[in-house]
Amino acid sequence: MFQSFDVTARPEQGPPRLAALRVVMAAQACDAFLVPRADAHQGEYVAPRDDRLAWLTGFTGSAGFCAVLPDVAGVFIDGRYRTQVKAQVADVYTPVPWPDITLGPWLADRLQAGAIVGFDPWLHSAGQIETLETSLAAAGIKAQACDNLVDRVWDDQPAPPMGPVKAHPLEFAGEPHAEKRARLAAGLRTDGQCAALITLPDSICWLLNIRGSDIPRNPVAQGFAILHDTGQVDLFMAQGKLSQVIDHLGPDVTVHAVDTLETALQALGGSVRVDRSTVPYILADLLGDRADFAGDPCALPKARKNPAEIAGSAAAHLRDGAAVVELLAWLDAQPIGSLRETDVVTKLETLRRSDNALQDISFETIAGTGPNGAIMHYRVTEDTDSTLHDGQLIVLDSGGQYLDGTTDITRTIAIGAPPHEACAAFTRVLQGMIAMSCLRWPVGLAGRDIEAIGRMPLWLAGQDFDHGLGHGVGAYLSVHEGPQRLSRVSQVPLEAGMILSNEPGYYREGAFGIRIENLIVAQDAAPKPGGDTHRKMLDWRTLTFAPIDRRLVVADMLTHSERAWINSYHAEVAEKIGPRLSPSAKTWLDAATSHI
Amino acid sequence: MFQSFDVTARPEQGPPRLAALRVVMAAQACDAFLVPRADAHQGEYVAPRDDRLAWLTGFTGSAGFCAVLPDVAGVFIDGRYRTQVKAQVADVYTPVPWPDITLGPWLADRLQAGAIVGFDPWLHSAGQIETLETSLAAAGIKAQACDNLVDRVWDDQPAPPMGPVKAHPLEFAGEPHAEKRARLAAGLRTDGQCAALITLPDSICWLLNIRGSDIPRNPVAQGFAILHDTGQVDLFMAQGKLSQVIDHLGPDVTVHAVDTLETALQALGGSVRVDRSTVPYILADLLGDRADFAGDPCALPKARKNPAEIAGSAAAHLRDGAAVVELLAWLDAQPIGSLRETDVVTKLETLRRSDNALQDISFETIAGTGPNGAIMHYRVTEDTDSTLHDGQLIVLDSGGQYLDGTTDITRTIAIGAPPHEACAAFTRVLQGMIAMSCLRWPVGLAGRDIEAIGRMPLWLAGQDFDHGLGHGVGAYLSVHEGPQRLSRVSQVPLEAGMILSNEPGYYREGAFGIRIENLIVAQDAAPKPGGDTHRKMLDWRTLTFAPIDRRLVVADMLTHSERAWINSYHAEVAEKIGPRLSPSAKTWLDAATSHI
Repeated sequence: MFQSFDVTARPEQGPPRLAALRVVMAAQACDAFLVPRADAHQGEYVAPRDDRLAWLTGFTGSAGFCAVLPDVAGVFIDGRYRTQVKAQVADVYTPVPWPDITLGPWLADRLQAGAIVGFDPWLHSAGQIETLETSLAAAGIKAQACDNLVDRVWDDQPAPPMGPVKAHPLEFAGEPHAEKRARLAAGLRTDGQCAALITLPDSICWLLNIRGSDIPRNPVAQGFAILHDTGQVDLFMAQGKLSQVIDHLGPDVTVHAVDTLETALQALGGSVRVDRSTVPYILADLLGDRADFAGDPCALPKARKNPAEIAGSAAAHLRDGAAVVELLAWLDAQPIGSLRETDVVTKLETLRRSDNALQDISFETIAGTGPNGAIMHYRVTEDTDSTLHDGQLIVLDSGGQYLDGTTDITRTIAIGAPPHEACAAFTRVLQGMIAMSCLRWPVGLAGRDIEAIGRMPLWLAGQDFDHGLGHGVGAYLSVHEGPQRLSRVSQVPLEAGMILSNEPGYYREGAFGIRIENLIVAQDAAPKPGGDTHRKMLDWRTLTFAPIDRRLVVADMLTHSERAWINSYHAEVAEKIGPRLSPSAKTWLDAATSHI
Repeated sequence: MFQSFDVTARPEQGPPRLAALRVVMAAQACDAFLVPRADAHQGEYVAPRDDRLAWLTGFTGSAGFCAVLPDVAGVFIDGRYRTQVKAQVADVYTPVPWPDITLGPWLADRLQAGAIVGFDPWLHSAGQIETLETSLAAAGIKAQACDNLVDRVWDDQPAPPMGPVKAHPLEFAGEPHAEKRARLAAGLRTDGQCAALITLPDSICWLLNIRGSDIPRNPVAQGFAILHDTGQVDLFMAQGKLSQVIDHLGPDVTVHAVDTLETALQALGGSVRVDRSTVPYILADLLGDRADFAGDPCALPKARKNPAEIAGSAAAHLRDGAAVVELLAWLDAQPIGSLRETDVVTKLETLRRSDNALQDISFETIAGTGPNGAIMHYRVTEDTDSTLHDGQLIVLDSGGQYLDGTTDITRTIAIGAPPHEACAAFTRVLQGMIAMSCLRWPVGLAGRDIEAIGRMPLWLAGQDFDHGLGHGVGAYLSVHEGPQRLSRVSQVPLEAGMILSNEPGYYREGAFGIRIENLIVAQDAAPKPGGDTHRKMLDWRTLTFAPIDRRLVVADMLTHSERAWINSYHAEVAEKIGPRLSPSAKTWLDAATSHI
């Protein structure tokens, strides 16, 4: 399904829906009701049925929540969405800057002692409710689980997704699911846990080597799983989705209806491993003292890609890189002023889809020219679609889902002749990207410990950007995957096999945006002559191959080694991608990768 | 008192003292007794009376503890001291690698259920005992406060120190103690605390603008203080030390005998702020529910130096830098092979003391030539004293205590012609030092977030070093001061006014050591043309001025900007230090600071 440019924000829908919700709240004696963006699986993307926040308020961002009271309805949004929310919600909604203002104190200021805050216990994690309860306790306010009151008033709410599930070939998964189950079960036995409850769809898909089609752009299947310390799995997922994988799952994976999950959890006789930050409140509450909040046992094994997954990702990146280079060559050939952002998005998706291996794009392409490029999470719509003008930069952030891997690449392209300050900032962003690409560091460090390396060139010029340097990426799974991140909030040690993005940027509001993004995979670094022999170190292998716009590079800002890196990278791009191109794109690439 | 080179380790003292201790343990029905290095103030340095660990075991390191059982006595030491401990303790002691092995599990493996672990409740913090109790609970072992059993068997234990206390002039302190007390008291009122208990001598000295002489090399006075939310202070300190400061302290500071502290704490009627990691267990226990573990209220205000303290530190560094340059000039003039490490230490201290402003050296000078340089905490003794040979590097780490500031400087000097690999490593260490010196970073980041900048040049060569990049430094106070650090364990945001060391190093065991250390102070960075106007950033001002050995720099490894930094730094050294030197040292400095 091609990316749509429909304007989905419907501010006018908000007031009547809010009024209807308040009627049922009053009937339930609910003094407040919480409407999160999240579904029961706490993922970044939700099915249309679960998009309650957008249905109610009009706000379509990927994070946030609404707290509805009889006389005020706060829409809590983070820094990325402060502009967007104003355009998307009616004035019956009050945008609240979050996390500067947090939910508990905001509610305590507006409710009396004895008030009841209702919430759907499937949509909030145990950790979230615990934090909320702590912050409401002093004010004498109580959080209370109840039915989802939005669902009561949403007449035409879509049905739960029923996307068919397929087996993920061993060739790409690299490890049979029986081995994964056995390996993780051994860990449960070591930790004295009788089972683990797994609620994240990408964890379940990884564990069982399956892929689904419930969520747009994400090859996951919604459901829950109990992994027993025997290695057996109870899979709680609609039977109708699983007809193609019964043999694949085999006798040690038993399928159950989702509504039998609670009974199954009640029957577990020992300590059950769960992840406090993602397990639905209702399930943690049901487990009670049996819950061992030791985290999702799939998270780290999934993050450490095996050789088959790394080889698959590398192959996917070459295929994807060819589509990107075709796009860049095409873009350069169009007369300045003849293209709009939507033309670029559609052309890129057409090129990606022209290779039949593409399963889907991995997220809605960001194509922001000029000032739109400074909006970090810009998604072009018919309302905002802008012509690419001379002197602008266009930020193009996109990716593909392939059976062998997930890609995510950003290139910033000159339209005509951008001003020097944009080129200078581009060069600094590039220097940060190169510094991280070349890094080698001792085993044991987390993203937080090394992120500064990719920001320093901007810092020295008094500049910075307000997003992390990089996020984890799955293997034909989520394009945003934890726990590994290159970010000051990430204290998880980096390990060999982890795939991350390396994407410094720079954004000047109202003027231009810049971002350069390659995916990189951590690997054991080869010994260096003269290096410390007792010290284990990691370095990066670059997976993404597409040229960096030489026209935006201020060559005399580069050190000798930075120049050497970019020339060597471009030589590799030409060698690896060139043979996959049309003749015209090949000619273009040869010029685009010539020496700086 | 000049630095001594006596061999203080006396392995033969250990067995009889251990035997005597075990006799009193048995009489007390103590199955284990803990002997920490720390005193009641949890500082890095202790008075001779409190040096129980060294008295008992012979081990003289600055951190560690002994756990004595009837049949085994474990000496827990960290990585810095694994070699040293073997030379200093008799074989009745068992060195235990700590924190690889922690106390609780070690005890649990060796004691029966029902066993009693005795400890002196003044010498362990509340946090330490809590951790210990948690780890012993499952084994049914109990930690129990008791008298100090070492003191029972230490017949000639020195008396508590009675060093006179002096007022610290306002000219250097920059803020009257009445204002400091009022400022902190306002914070206590805001946090609903009726008082704070302050147990760290440097916090008390900072708060009351006094300096003492209880501890070698550290101008602090031992005692305790209660800061009330009125701004009044009860100071628990031996009267005999305070005769010179009664007027200075004034009517709002009341002096009490130390043994009345517990009664005074009992009388406090509200929440009392204390620091969990440093408050003696006995005092936290006495406070019970009234203890609010919100940290030492002096820690951050002390760390943020005011303009007078920064100006004082800068002045002290020029004075100290002149002594260091005189030493370096003298060193270069001696025939190779004619000097031993002790000659260098004594000469440097003589030069420092020739300026009457020196109060004391700020720690025992580290002077390690050749392989001794690779021992990070090397202190030369008569046994280890080595000749400086051709081709060696000597690491010289030293500092001075002046009324206006505390200094700490390391230079690594070539003796004759060291091998290329040493020069290459020196150049990388220098590149890291320069990168940190030049850094500019957004407000809010901690040492952990930027430390990588100072290590990257080594990392890229497969090298690293096993200590932090930098520590906080006091203003005529402790040379190691928290909470600010440039270290992967430091999550305290850096703030303007914090003084830190910037001291990357490299150590090749059995061959050579390298360390280059300047003190730097964080300051609000001036705006950059083209920089983000909404973004507050910090940068460093360098305080230390002494040349970096040009003979060890591999010039063609430097970038243009690194070369520019060193030439500019050397020009500043020549300008600032040159006028303070003897004619021969001035001539030497001109050559030593010539362009690279």
